Amino acid sequence: MNMAEQMVQLARASKEAGRVLARLSSAVKDDLLRHMADALEQNAEALISANENDLAAARDKGMAPAMVDRLVLDEKRIVAMAEGLREVAALPDPVGEITGMWRRPNGIQVGRMRIPLGVIGIIYESRPNVTADAAGLCLKSGNAVILRGGSEAIHSNTAIGDILRQQLEKLGLPKAALQVVPVTDRAAVLELLKLEEEIDLIIPRGGEGLIRFVSENSRIPVIKHYKGVCHTFIDASADFDMAERICVNAKVQRPGVCNAMETLLIHKDIAETFVPQIAAVMRSHGVELRGCPLTRSFAPQIKAATEEDWSAEFLDLILAVRVVDDMEEAIAHIQRYGSLHTETIVTRDYENSQRFLREVNSSVVMVNASSRFSDGNQLGLGAEIGISTTKLHSFGPMGLEDLTTRKFVVLGDGQVRA
Amino acid sequence: MNMAEQMVQLARASKEAGRVLARLSSAVKDDLLRHMADALEQNAEALISANENDLAAARDKGMAPAMVDRLVLDEKRIVAMAEGLREVAALPDPVGEITGMWRRPNGIQVGRMRIPLGVIGIIYESRPNVTADAAGLCLKSGNAVILRGGSEAIHSNTAIGDILRQQLEKLGLPKAALQVVPVTDRAAVLELLKLEEEIDLIIPRGGEGLIRFVSENSRIPVIKHYKGVCHTFIDASADFDMAERICVNAKVQRPGVCNAMETLLIHKDIAETFVPQIAAVMRSHGVELRGCPLTRSFAPQIKAATEEDWSAEFLDLILAVRVVDDMEEAIAHIQRYGSLHTETIVTRDYENSQRFLREVNSSVVMVNASSRFSDGNQLGLGAEIGISTTKLHSFGPMGLEDLTTRKFVVLGDGQVRA
Repeated sequence: MNMAEQMVQLARASKEAGRVLARLSSAVKDDLLRHMADALEQNAEALISANENDLAAARDKGMAPAMVDRLVLDEKRIVAMAEGLREVAALPDPVGEITGMWRRPNGIQVGRMRIPLGVIGIIYESRPNVTADAAGLCLKSGNAVILRGGSEAIHSNTAIGDILRQQLEKLGLPKAALQVVPVTDRAAVLELLKLEEEIDLIIPRGGEGLIRFVSENSRIPVIKHYKGVCHTFIDASADFDMAERICVNAKVQRPGVCNAMETLLIHKDIAETFVPQIAAVMRSHGVELRGCPLTRSFAPQIKAATEEDWSAEFLDLILAVRVVDDMEEAIAHIQRYGSLHTETIVTRDYENSQRFLREVNSSVVMVNASSRFSDGNQLGLGAEIGISTTKLHSFGPMGLEDLTTRKFVVLGDGQVRA
Repeated sequence: MNMAEQMVQLARASKEAGRVLARLSSAVKDDLLRHMADALEQNAEALISANENDLAAARDKGMAPAMVDRLVLDEKRIVAMAEGLREVAALPDPVGEITGMWRRPNGIQVGRMRIPLGVIGIIYESRPNVTADAAGLCLKSGNAVILRGGSEAIHSNTAIGDILRQQLEKLGLPKAALQVVPVTDRAAVLELLKLEEEIDLIIPRGGEGLIRFVSENSRIPVIKHYKGVCHTFIDASADFDMAERICVNAKVQRPGVCNAMETLLIHKDIAETFVPQIAAVMRSHGVELRGCPLTRSFAPQIKAATEEDWSAEFLDLILAVRVVDDMEEAIAHIQRYGSLHTETIVTRDYENSQRFLREVNSSVVMVNASSRFSDGNQLGLGAEIGISTTKLHSFGPMGLEDLTTRKFVVLGDGQVRA
């Protein structure tokens, strides 16, 4: 059997298993996830030893220490995976929810009921914990899942997958509901991306290169998250203390993540006072500022921003700063340079707050709060499979509900069309 | 300027216009649609004369009369287009709706607000009325629209587009909110399908060939409707009169459409009585039956069904009939041969009705009603842009709401992440 055939067979098994998963009660799915959590903890030693193979190979290849660290599975990370599964088990099940029901003039009742998507393919890079995290969310929402992690984590991912699959078997459920692609060749991904009859959704998780590769080669719908160039706009009416607190949190609390602020926009009416204030506090936190000419006229020690800086996702203690004439210009800047991730206004003005909320169509739009809240857990989705910066199907942080779709249900008593 | 550049420029203008559209109040959009409706009626003569060019070309090419008929624009069809626009104007506007709002422990309020998708591309075949129908739905939901009809209708489509665009201009709105692609070359479609930065969604409307061409060549998300192989399952407990009424309506009332029944499944416990009954009534309506061996054992005059008949979309007075052991087998048949469009059970049994609703995951699932109700108007969506038989973003008949997405809105009073 060649690789293309192998992938078709794998995906068909997933599709069959997905039909079984779709019918499970929440109680059975929750029980499964809790068994999986226990099994990960009970098999920690075996997992750590499988992980050693990946780590040894990574060191042999001379992988950078920061990259090696992402690969590591230790006792603490295994417990975190198990806890993640238990948290997902405790979330409400979206499947079966009827999100509205109405009656037509002829008496038929029409509603929309949430159902699983079917089969979800997750294509990811180094972190082996994604194997358990993604599996938990997909299974809880009644979907079969195909996991294709990075070749550098293949031993760890396979070991995690084996343990989770044993629990499916123990509960009399099809093991094919969770499959770890055993082939590390990139050609295997290309084959999977053709199988639009078997796989309903592909979610790539990783760097921009991986995401572009997947989205350019897929016939299956892909939910993408390219990057987070998040803006904070300080309106003329802003409370300066609040603005400072929000800016520092958005930039400094964890600069390496997609919901950190990358560009600060400041209304010109307050720039003379606020620019020096924020420049001083950012400097004290080790942040390098890169400003527009007007910004630098109020704080000359700031480096000049280049055109590239306005669309950069620094993921570092670097911040682009621009003074704008008004909210109109702030919104135009966000539309031109933004990535549709998260934008915040700091203001005391009611009308401006409402206008910003209405007119900025990024996936998350905030008033007087740090952009760092832009993730599934913080927003109350319970857990997150990713953040979509494209608009179709889901936009913004994605939870369990985003792994479902809705069918129409119609209840009649013999109606026919006239 | 070459064609690729021309398409990029066109799509960029749509994107700019889409931002203006997204901010319009419902009152302005409704006013626009009513002006457009009036203008179509007032310019009926000019439309009919433009249409004459297409009809003459079609006749010169020797196009089949049925195809020529689809191209015709007469007074009646122009009034129908205008009425369609007025009906869409009267529908509730989905944009701005907040579909839920909750408070997090730290006091931030989180909600989800409906927003337009941005730019929608409609790629369609002969019927020129699609130009006005699709434009109305896209504009009402705050989206810019790019319309690319068939080359055989180019004069009609351009004339309709010009009249509609004049109304945009009259109300001080950007004409680029509605664009009819002036190039009839298929290469223009290929160029459009690459523009994932500018166009948010592609909806192809037409035959399977067109849909496959679009979906195989698009980098932009595509909502597809391949075909409708709709099943009706007559359970053992069914009321025979109701079953007959529903079957006749589903098969005979309009056989050439996607929500007509193509396969009838009959529970074996009632086959001996029901097969001869339905065979007689179908014969009286001129329907050709093609049955499985068991079906034919109860009505020997029925032709034998081939394997291909089970997955055929006849769009004609032909019906495949199969006797099944139980609901399990009926569902398995639907999963194997169906197209995820619409399935119906006729039953008096509560448990079976609920199980069918739960376990059949086609886009529309019905109890005791004719599959002919499976369209946007009949289900109460008001109007329909198409029927999706793929699960992502929308599944089933699509109305205005399906042309929107949701962003998160967050209202804080200075919260930062700990």
